[in-house]
Amino acid sequence: MPRGRRISLLGAGLIGTFYTMTIHGPRSRDRVWTVCAATDAEASAFAAKWGIPHSTADIVKAVEDPETDLVVVGLPNNLHKTAVLAAARAGKPVLCTKPLGRTAAEALEICEAVDKAGVFAGYLEDLVYTPKTLKALESVRRGALGRILWVRSRETHPGPHSAWFWDKEIAGGGAIVDMGCHCIEIIRSFVGKDVRPVEVLCTADTLVHPIQAEDSGLGLIRFESRAIGQFEVNWTFRGGMDLRDEVAGTEGSIRLDHFLRTGFEMFTAVGQGGYVAEKAEGDKGWLFPVGDEVHALGYVHMFADMFDALDEGRAPRETFADGYIVNAVIDACYRSAAAKRWEPVELAAWNGAGAGPEAEEAPPHAPEGERYILIKEERMPDGRIKRIVKDRETGEISQGSLED
Amino acid sequence: MPRGRRISLLGAGLIGTFYTMTIHGPRSRDRVWTVCAATDAEASAFAAKWGIPHSTADIVKAVEDPETDLVVVGLPNNLHKTAVLAAARAGKPVLCTKPLGRTAAEALEICEAVDKAGVFAGYLEDLVYTPKTLKALESVRRGALGRILWVRSRETHPGPHSAWFWDKEIAGGGAIVDMGCHCIEIIRSFVGKDVRPVEVLCTADTLVHPIQAEDSGLGLIRFESRAIGQFEVNWTFRGGMDLRDEVAGTEGSIRLDHFLRTGFEMFTAVGQGGYVAEKAEGDKGWLFPVGDEVHALGYVHMFADMFDALDEGRAPRETFADGYIVNAVIDACYRSAAAKRWEPVELAAWNGAGAGPEAEEAPPHAPEGERYILIKEERMPDGRIKRIVKDRETGEISQGSLED
Amino acid sequence: MPRGRRISLLGAGLIGTFYTMTIHGPRSRDRVWTVCAATDAEASAFAAKWGIPHSTADIVKAVEDPETDLVVVGLPNNLHKTAVLAAARAGKPVLCTKPLGRTAAEALEICEAVDKAGVFAGYLEDLVYTPKTLKALESVRRGALGRILWVRSRETHPGPHSAWFWDKEIAGGGAIVDMGCHCIEIIRSFVGKDVRPVEVLCTADTLVHPIQAEDSGLGLIRFESRAIGQFEVNWTFRGGMDLRDEVAGTEGSIRLDHFLRTGFEMFTAVGQGGYVAEKAEGDKGWLFPVGDEVHALGYVHMFADMFDALDEGRAPRETFADGYIVNAVIDACYRSAAAKRWEPVELAAWNGAGAGPEAEEAPPHAPEGERYILIKEERMPDGRIKRIVKDRETGEISQGSLED
Amino acid sequence: MPRGRRISLLGAGLIGTFYTMTIHGPRSRDRVWTVCAATDAEASAFAAKWGIPHSTADIVKAVEDPETDLVVVGLPNNLHKTAVLAAARAGKPVLCTKPLGRTAAEALEICEAVDKAGVFAGYLEDLVYTPKTLKALESVRRGALGRILWVRSRETHPGPHSAWFWDKEIAGGGAIVDMGCHCIEIIRSFVGKDVRPVEVLCTADTLVHPIQAEDSGLGLIRFESRAIGQFEVNWTFRGGMDLRDEVAGTEGSIRLDHFLRTGFEMFTAVGQGGYVAEKAEGDKGWLFPVGDEVHALGYVHMFADMFDALDEGRAPRETFADGYIVNAVIDACYRSAAAKRWEPVELAAWNGAGAGPEAEEAPPHAPEGERYILIKEERMPDGRIKRIVKDRETGEISQGSLED
Repeated sequence: MPRGRRISLLGAGLIGTFYTMTIHGPRSRDRVWTVCAATDAEASAFAAKWGIPHSTADIVKAVEDPETDLVVVGLPNNLHKTAVLAAARAGKPVLCTKPLGRTAAEALEICEAVDKAGVFAGYLEDLVYTPKTLKALESVRRGALGRILWVRSRETHPGPHSAWFWDKEIAGGGAIVDMGCHCIEIIRSFVGKDVRPVEVLCTADTLVHPIQAEDSGLGLIRFESRAIGQFEVNWTFRGGMDLRDEVAGTEGSIRLDHFLRTGFEMFTAVGQGGYVAEKAEGDKGWLFPVGDEVHALGYVHMFADMFDALDEGRAPRETFADGYIVNAVIDACYRSAAAKRWEPVELAAWNGAGAGPEAEEAPPHAPEGERYILIKEERMPDGRIKRIVKDRETGEISQGSLED
Repeated sequence: MPRGRRISLLGAGLIGTFYTMTIHGPRSRDRVWTVCAATDAEASAFAAKWGIPHSTADIVKAVEDPETDLVVVGLPNNLHKTAVLAAARAGKPVLCTKPLGRTAAEALEICEAVDKAGVFAGYLEDLVYTPKTLKALESVRRGALGRILWVRSRETHPGPHSAWFWDKEIAGGGAIVDMGCHCIEIIRSFVGKDVRPVEVLCTADTLVHPIQAEDSGLGLIRFESRAIGQFEVNWTFRGGMDLRDEVAGTEGSIRLDHFLRTGFEMFTAVGQGGYVAEKAEGDKGWLFPVGDEVHALGYVHMFADMFDALDEGRAPRETFADGYIVNAVIDACYRSAAAKRWEPVELAAWNGAGAGPEAEEAPPHAPEGERYILIKEERMPDGRIKRIVKDRETGEISQGSLED
Repeated sequence: MPRGRRISLLGAGLIGTFYTMTIHGPRSRDRVWTVCAATDAEASAFAAKWGIPHSTADIVKAVEDPETDLVVVGLPNNLHKTAVLAAARAGKPVLCTKPLGRTAAEALEICEAVDKAGVFAGYLEDLVYTPKTLKALESVRRGALGRILWVRSRETHPGPHSAWFWDKEIAGGGAIVDMGCHCIEIIRSFVGKDVRPVEVLCTADTLVHPIQAEDSGLGLIRFESRAIGQFEVNWTFRGGMDLRDEVAGTEGSIRLDHFLRTGFEMFTAVGQGGYVAEKAEGDKGWLFPVGDEVHALGYVHMFADMFDALDEGRAPRETFADGYIVNAVIDACYRSAAAKRWEPVELAAWNGAGAGPEAEEAPPHAPEGERYILIKEERMPDGRIKRIVKDRETGEISQGSLED
Repeated sequence: MPRGRRISLLGAGLIGTFYTMTIHGPRSRDRVWTVCAATDAEASAFAAKWGIPHSTADIVKAVEDPETDLVVVGLPNNLHKTAVLAAARAGKPVLCTKPLGRTAAEALEICEAVDKAGVFAGYLEDLVYTPKTLKALESVRRGALGRILWVRSRETHPGPHSAWFWDKEIAGGGAIVDMGCHCIEIIRSFVGKDVRPVEVLCTADTLVHPIQAEDSGLGLIRFESRAIGQFEVNWTFRGGMDLRDEVAGTEGSIRLDHFLRTGFEMFTAVGQGGYVAEKAEGDKGWLFPVGDEVHALGYVHMFADMFDALDEGRAPRETFADGYIVNAVIDACYRSAAAKRWEPVELAAWNGAGAGPEAEEAPPHAPEGERYILIKEERMPDGRIKRIVKDRETGEISQGSLED
C-alpha cells in the first residue's frame, strides 16, 4: 500500500486550516504531524481540533522534528524567508505558500537557499491547480484555442480575513501582492510558462479602506509572444469572492467562473446560520455556495502534485523559480504604478525557451499564388454570406456576397 | 498513519474505471487489489492499466481473495445478486453499484442475504454524494429552505455507453431503472429519508431508439409529508449529459447544475481531439467541460463515506435498505405507467419515522386574535406595497396598499 | 404614415398597466382612448396617469365608445364573458386576456358569441410572444430540433398581486388556471398547434396558503404525436418569479430563462428603494432585474401581432379557439387531479391537422439491407469510440470499439 | 393620435438595416421616407425591401428632401462630416451613428457646424440604450452601488462585416475606433457623464488579421473621481459576439451579458439554416441566440429617446458633445499606445460639473471619538466572526473574534 507523508505545518490561520483540511482530506494517506502557531495555546488548540499529534510555537523546532518528511509554510509573508531558510538548513523538503517573497530580491534569496541546500521545493500556488484550470490548460496544450492572444484573471473580494494582510510592511503590499500573485501565475500558465514576460503596466489605488497599501490594482503584462495578460484585483468588491479567468486564442476561447457561478444557486428568506462560503456577504437572499471549497480552490490537486513529485523525484508544476518570476512581475507592477508607464520585468535569469514558437508565427496567409487573402466571412441577417478580402498586391480591401 | 483498504473490484467497464480512478485518487491510501472482468484478457489489461496486482475472470475467486478487505460490485444489473450473495457467503463487506436490484424482489433478496450474513453493505449511489448535493442537503437540514415542498431531479443524455444497458432483460428496464434510481434517491434525500414515499405516477415511452425498453420516463412521487418529487429521465437528450436538481421549500429554493453549466465554457473552432466530458456531443463549437468528473459526480465523497463508515463501524449514508426502497419506487413506476394511474409504493417494511414533523405542520396562521390573515405582500411597479388579506371569520379575501 | 388604433381598455389593475405601457410604448402609434375601471375614481386616476382622454366605470359605455376601434379586456376572469359578449354585441374587434374562460364551457360560449357576431378576436397570451419564445419557435419550425419529444414550461412565484386571484369562485381555480394557461399554450406552440392534446395527468395541492384553491400544480399532457408536455405552476416559489421553458427534440434542445437568469445580475448591500422587477423578493443582496419587463414578457410582440392582424385582415397567432383548447386542457387537469388518473381532453371540435407528420414517423432505421442498426456512438475517457448496434434479425445488442 | 417622423436615411448597409428595422418596428409611427445608398441600384433595392417610398445615391438630395423631418446618418466613418454638414446646411435635425468623427478634431468640426446651424443633433450610441444598461444606470443613479469605483466594458467578435471597417484611412483606426467608442460611452455613463475623464493608458496590437489597423486594444481611463474605466475590444474573439459590462461600487456590483448568455441556449445537431445572431460562429452545436436583436442592442430605446427629444424640444441622452468626448478619449488612447504611458485626455471645453461629489468624498471613518476604525468583518469556516480594526492613534491593525 502507498506510503503517506508526515508534515510539519507552519501556520495555523485560515490558510493553515485549508491546508490541513486538504492534507487530511477524503481517504488521504498523509497527515500533519507537527503544527506551529504564534503561541503554544493556539498551536495546541489547532492540534486538538485536527488530530495533530504535536504542536509548538517554535518554528525551528517544528521544522527540525525528526519524524516529519517535509515542511509546509503557511505563515504571513514576512516570515516566508525565515521559515524556508530554516527548512533548507535542516535539509528538509519545503513547500511555501504564495507569494514566495515580499519582493523579487527576497524570493531570489529564498530560491538560492534551497538550491544551495539541494532540497526539494514547491510553490503553493493553489489557483493554478483548480480542476477547471487544469482541464483548461490541457485543452490549451492540445491546441483547442490555437495561439494564445489574451488572458484575463480576476480576483476580488471585500478584503482579507487577517490583520497582517492589511499591514503593508508585513505583507509587502496590498491587493496586488495578495491576489495579483495568483493572477500572474494563472496568466503565465495559459500563455506558456516558457514564454518570457517582458514588460508590465499597472495602476494601483487605495479607494475604500483606511490603509496605506493599495486596495485596488489593474495590470497588463506583455509577453515575448505578444500575448497580453490582464489582471484585476481588489479588496473592494461587493457580493462575495469573485474568481474568474478568461482565455482567448486564435481558434477559441474559455471562460472560467470558480466561485460565484458554478451551478449552485440558493435563495433563502431565513438564512441557515453560520458559514456559507469564503467571503460570502450575508446569508440571506440569493447565495452562490461552492460545493467543495478546498477542491474548487485547487488545494487538493496542488498537494497531490507536490507530494507525488516528491515521491517520484520530479519537479512539481509550480516551483520556487515560478514564485520568483511572479515576484519580479509584481515588483515591475509597483514600479509601473509609480512611474505611470510600462516597466520592464527584470529577471536575474531566464530559463524559459524564450518566446516559444508563437513569436515566429506570422499572421495567416492565403496560399501562395492566390491574389486575394480572406479577411472575414460572415452570415448576414438576410441569410447571405459576406466575404471580405484583401488584394495581396494593391493592399485594397473589398467585399462580396455569396448566396448560400 | 491511517491504514488503507484493499479492494476486490468486480467489473472493468466505465463504472469500474470511474471507481478505480476514485479509489486510486489524489493521495489516496486505498487500492484495488484484485479486479474481475468478463474475460481474463480484459481483466489483465485493466489491471495493467491501473497498476492493480491481481486480475481474474472468476467472480468468486475475486470475492474470496484473502488479501482484500471488501468487495465493490460494478457489474451489469443482472449480476448484482450473484455478486453480493458471493460476498455475503464469504463474510466480506460489500458495496454495490446502483440500482441494487432489477426489481424490489431482487433487492429484498440481496438485503436479506447481507443481513443474514451480518456483513457491512453500502449502496453506491454516487449522485447523492456530489459536493453540491452534500452542501445543499446540509443547508436544507439547517432550515434554509423551510419545509420541503417539491424536488425535481433530471438526468438525461443521448443513451448509455455499453450494450447491456439497452437490453431490457439484463438491465431490468430502460432509462427509468438506469437513471431514475439516481433521481429517486436524490429526491428522497432532499424530502427526508425518514419520510415515506406513498404513491407514484409515471409515464414511459420508447420515442427514438429501436429498443424494447423505455428511452423516456417521467414520474411523480408523493410523500407522506405531501411533498412531491418529480423525476425526468431519458436517453434521447441532445447536447451532452444534463444532470440538474431543483428543490423548493416554504422559505427558499435551490438550483443545482452538475454538468452542463458549472462555470466552465469553451469555444473551439478546431477541437482538441479526444474526450471532452462524459457523453459530450462533438468536440467543436461551444463545449461545457467539467473540471474533475469523478469528483463532480460524487464518487470521491461516496467512497470516502463508505470506507470511513467501515473503519468507524457505522452505517454509511446510503445503505442497501435505501437501494431496496428505490427499487420499490421503480416497480411502482412501471406499474403506474402500465395502469395510467397513481400506484402505491409497496414496501415490505418501513423503518422511517413516518411523515416526519412536516406532516403535522399546519399552514401559517396569523397570531390568534387578529382578524386578518396575511396572504401576500408585493411591491408594485409604482413603488407601493400591496397587501392581500383574508378575513378569518368570513373567509373573504381583500387587498390594500401601503405607501412605502 | 401608418394609422394607429384607438382602444377601449377594460381593467385598470396590473395587467391594465402592463397593457397600457405596451400600447403607449416607444414611438407607438396606438393609444388607449377610454379606460374602464371598477370605480369612476380609479378610472379617472388611471386615465390621468397614462394620458388617456376618457374614463368610466361602465363596461358597456367603454365598449360602445364610437371613437374606439377595438376593445381590450384586462378584467378578472369572472368578467371575461360579460365583456366579450358586450363587444360582440357592439360589433367591435375584441382582445381578451388569459385565461379565456374559467371553464371550457365558458370559453366555448365566448367563442360562439364572437363567431356569430363575426368580429375579430384575439387571445392575449403574452408568454407565447416573448422574443425568446418567438425565435425559439422559428428555430423549431426550421427543423433545428428535429421531431419534438418533450416540452417543459415552468411558472412559479410567491403568489399573485390582486385579491381576486385568490378567490376560487372569481378566478375559476388557483395556480393552474392562473399560470397553467400560459404553460399549456407555450407547450402547444412548441409541440405544434395542429397536434391534438389527447390526455392529461395532473396533481394539485394547497401546500402553503390559507386558501381554497390549489397553490401548486403539476401536469403532463400527452399529444397525438406522442410528445409530452409538462407544466409546473405554483404560488409557493421563493426567490422571485421563475419563468422557464425547455424543449427537447430528436436533434436538439432549447433552454429559455425569461426572468431570473437573463444576463443581468446585481448585488447591492444598501438596496435602491422601490420596485426591482415583478415579484422580486427583497431589494438587497443578489438580485436579477430584467431589462425591459413588458418586452421580455411578450406584451410588445403580442399587441403588434394583434393590431397588425386586424390591419391586415388575417388571424393573429393566438385566437379564441386557442383559448378554448387551453381551457379544455385545464378542465381535464382538474378532473385528473380529482380522479388521480389520466383524463381525456374533451374538445367540442378539433380543427388541427391531427397528429401532424410526426405521428407517422417511425424510429430511425439503418439503410435497408444492412444487418446492424446503429443505436449509439460515444467517445470514452480513453479516447476510443464505442459503438452499440442491434442485429436486425436476432434483435441482439452488441458493442465494439473504434480507434479514432 | 401621435404624429410620426419621416426620415432621410443615409446608408443602406447592416447599420442602415438595423436602423430601418427599428424605425419601422412594432406599431411604430415613424417611417424612413428616403434612403440614400452608394448606388442607385442599391438604394432602390433597399427601398423596395423595406417599403421606403424614395431612394437615391445622392446624399444632398436625400438630406434636402422637403418631405422629411430629420436626417439619420448610417454611413462609413469617413462620410460622417460630409453628411452632418449637409444636414446643418439644410437646417435639418440630424442623428449620426458612432463614432462621431474619426478624430476629435473632426468631431469638433461636426459639433461646431450643428451648433452654428442651431439644429437638433443626436449621437447614435446604441449600447448605452440597451434595456439592461438603462435599468442598471437607474439603479446606479438611485445609489444601489454606492460610489462607482470601476467599470469594465468588453466588446469583441471575430471582425466586422463590411470592407470599409478594415481600412484604417476610411475608418480612422481599427477595433478601438470601431468598438472602443461604445465602451468609452458605457463607462462614462456609469461613472457619471459629469465626471471628467482625465487620462488614459492604452495598448494596441495587430495580432491576427493581415491589416494595418489594430485588431486588439485594451485601455484604462482614469476619471477625476478616481474611478477607473477599463475597455477591452478586439476583432479576434472566437465564439460569437461578446458584449459584457461590469460595474463595481462601494456598496454593490453589476454584471451585464448582452449577447452570449441571456437565458437562451440551443443545441442543434443539424442546424437550422441561415442566420442565428449577429456574428455567431457556426449554426450547429450549442448556440446562444438573442431574442430580439435590435431591442437587445439598444436601437429601440435609442431612437425613441432621439425622436421624443426632438418632439419635446429637449436634449437626448446622447449628444454630439458626448461623441466629441469619446473621440478625444480615443485620440488619447492612440497617443498612449504609441508613447507607452498614460496620456491626458485633451478636451477643447468641459461642461461637466467636474469630479462630481465623489471626488470630495473621503474614505469611511469611524464615528469621531472612537479609537478603533473597523476595516473588515468576516465569518470564518468555524462560524466565528472575525473583526479587523485600526487604531486611529497608532495606525496599528489588529484583529479579534466574536462568537456569533
